[in-house]
Amino acid sequence: MSESQTFAPLSGGCITDVKGWRAAGVACGIKKNGALDLALLVSDRPASCAGVFTTNRFQAAPVLYDREAILADPRGVRAVVANSGCANACTGPEGLEDAREMARLAGRATGVDTNRVLVMSTGVIGQRLPMRSVAHGVELAAAALSADGGHAAARAIMTTDTHPKEVAARLSIEGREVTVAGMAKGAGMISPNMATLLVAVATDASVAPGALDGIIRYAADRSFNCVTVDGDMSTNDTFLLLANGAAGGREISGPQSEGYQQLRDAVTYVATELAKMVAFDGEGATKHVTVHVTGARNRAEARQVAMTVAKSPLVKTAIYGKDANWGRIVCAVGYSGVEVEPEAVDMWLGDLHLVHNGRPFQVDEERASQILAETDVAITIALGMGDADVTVWTCDLSHEYVSINANYRT
Amino acid sequence: MSESQTFAPLSGGCITDVKGWRAAGVACGIKKNGALDLALLVSDRPASCAGVFTTNRFQAAPVLYDREAILADPRGVRAVVANSGCANACTGPEGLEDAREMARLAGRATGVDTNRVLVMSTGVIGQRLPMRSVAHGVELAAAALSADGGHAAARAIMTTDTHPKEVAARLSIEGREVTVAGMAKGAGMISPNMATLLVAVATDASVAPGALDGIIRYAADRSFNCVTVDGDMSTNDTFLLLANGAAGGREISGPQSEGYQQLRDAVTYVATELAKMVAFDGEGATKHVTVHVTGARNRAEARQVAMTVAKSPLVKTAIYGKDANWGRIVCAVGYSGVEVEPEAVDMWLGDLHLVHNGRPFQVDEERASQILAETDVAITIALGMGDADVTVWTCDLSHEYVSINANYRT
Repeated sequence: MSESQTFAPLSGGCITDVKGWRAAGVACGIKKNGALDLALLVSDRPASCAGVFTTNRFQAAPVLYDREAILADPRGVRAVVANSGCANACTGPEGLEDAREMARLAGRATGVDTNRVLVMSTGVIGQRLPMRSVAHGVELAAAALSADGGHAAARAIMTTDTHPKEVAARLSIEGREVTVAGMAKGAGMISPNMATLLVAVATDASVAPGALDGIIRYAADRSFNCVTVDGDMSTNDTFLLLANGAAGGREISGPQSEGYQQLRDAVTYVATELAKMVAFDGEGATKHVTVHVTGARNRAEARQVAMTVAKSPLVKTAIYGKDANWGRIVCAVGYSGVEVEPEAVDMWLGDLHLVHNGRPFQVDEERASQILAETDVAITIALGMGDADVTVWTCDLSHEYVSINANYRT
Repeated sequence: MSESQTFAPLSGGCITDVKGWRAAGVACGIKKNGALDLALLVSDRPASCAGVFTTNRFQAAPVLYDREAILADPRGVRAVVANSGCANACTGPEGLEDAREMARLAGRATGVDTNRVLVMSTGVIGQRLPMRSVAHGVELAAAALSADGGHAAARAIMTTDTHPKEVAARLSIEGREVTVAGMAKGAGMISPNMATLLVAVATDASVAPGALDGIIRYAADRSFNCVTVDGDMSTNDTFLLLANGAAGGREISGPQSEGYQQLRDAVTYVATELAKMVAFDGEGATKHVTVHVTGARNRAEARQVAMTVAKSPLVKTAIYGKDANWGRIVCAVGYSGVEVEPEAVDMWLGDLHLVHNGRPFQVDEERASQILAETDVAITIALGMGDADVTVWTCDLSHEYVSINANYRT
């Protein structure tokens, strides 16, 4: 984010606060427990679109479908239909046909060409979509579309999330009010080097697809690629950025355009806040853990060290147990694969300077316990090798994480 | 291992079944709970030695000390002194001096030159060794040395292990009886690409250091580098292989020597069985999980896929919950970093062929539940790309793992 913040957070905002978007979230029986499970987003005009998708070699049908659809017409997106409860992954050609049919149904119900509808799915892998439920849900959602349906849509994409995740911001470009708002779901299978799980961010700015692509990659690198819950990378992860231009004004065509940097920063803000919500809502999380690595030779190495610490089950269980077992943190730094110099490493837990030059320093167990009693726990690691830094977000590893994942399908 | 097994397992054997070795395990107060915490192994003649050590950038003092000692005199090792309860890691030059002093004390108590004594430590990181306890323990152990002290020594190196880990085998080389026996400790911080935690394997064969080095690397690659509990790599991991020649006979000087391959296979057997004990005694383990990957282009890729599956918290919690959530296994294969072809992948749970050509096949939930009700769970993944295969061992991720690691130091 730039030094001077050129946007304002929009408290309590949701995706339908973006001009020209209507949304709905309904229950259609894909989830057995009767919870909301199908979301529909519709723009009143074609939107430019950019996407970032999972790098898993097994790509779910909706991911394959969306990639192709965006490539075919990156300026023509009118709707996104999303479901929870079934991932439509590892389902072969039939699954791809189901994804297409889901888009067809949503297009028919909203009067939009099929190829202008994108699809997102999340849930159990290896099961076919129950298409009768989907057809029913699409009808219900199309009928329920409204200019304040964003909150319901955000609820309908939840799986093990404990709360919906929505963030919005307002900015002004050449005197026109522009809104950026997004929703995300995700609490497990959260891993770096990809946009994480299902994320849709919309804006009413007018942006060319190429510029949008630059913005989404910048934002993903600083948000969803900086969170981890368990190191598992899903087959379905999708981050869509949609710009329908309903705010009016000149199109942002590239980095030199008026408003490009402002919009990029606002999108990055929305994505980062959503990403933190995902990390802190990690399955079974009792702590919000921020790992800040400074003094790395480059951003990639900083991230590698931070992610290794953030993924370590031993670090995560120690934080859960409020145990200032800093040796585990140092140990994870050491096996990160980055050639750190042990005698140059400093480490802080909150403001407590635990390690100096690779050795114990202010090891004050009482103060450490106080710091670990808080919900928010910050770990800072200074490598003393260069100027690059990165911040990543994660949660602790609790008994509840095990319970949730041992019984996910039952 | 070779087709025809040229050694016999020695049931109930321990390290002092190897000719010329005496051992002891005593309690000297390094552990607060009064359990055995110091082990001493002494050979009646100099032994050749080879070691494999942690690749963590933070290397504990005993690791630094041993590397140097073996380099200085790879034919002269007479004793190994090991403690649990304190890792002597991240302790700077003072820690290295403590490791030296520990060797000095053990040498003095057993009448052996200091530079012929190796040191191993395991336990909490970042605390200095309580040298008065160590001195006391060394005296006690030296007095207690006996030809059947191996079992006590194996107990004295335990930390969160639920049982001591000892394996022995007998073979015949040129008509002489040769014994190989080892002990290991380890239940957490278990990760690949290194010898895992503390392992000492002794033999009374006569072997040149260079040949011993070849044997230990071959054995480590097939044993300790193929297990994982939590993906965390310790600062202290040490695998020592000691050959004192007490069985008599010609020295094995290299791969062409009579008995080399036989000895290598026996050492690999002992190391593999110890490694499996470590994986299956993983902290909180309720299941013994074997992941077999076949059809890889090479051994490195096979291992990468197998280890990614074996480390996945989602796979491990599903197995703990007896949930045949095979999608998580396929998903982990997909993000392993190996460029697998999804449509060529087959997967079995036990003998149940769950995935064929990347898609669900014989998904029989009832049969899957029966398979997951057993303690031993085998996962086989066929990549369909080549001829390389690898087997790795791990355990499930349970509530108990979290409990153990949340409260390790308290």
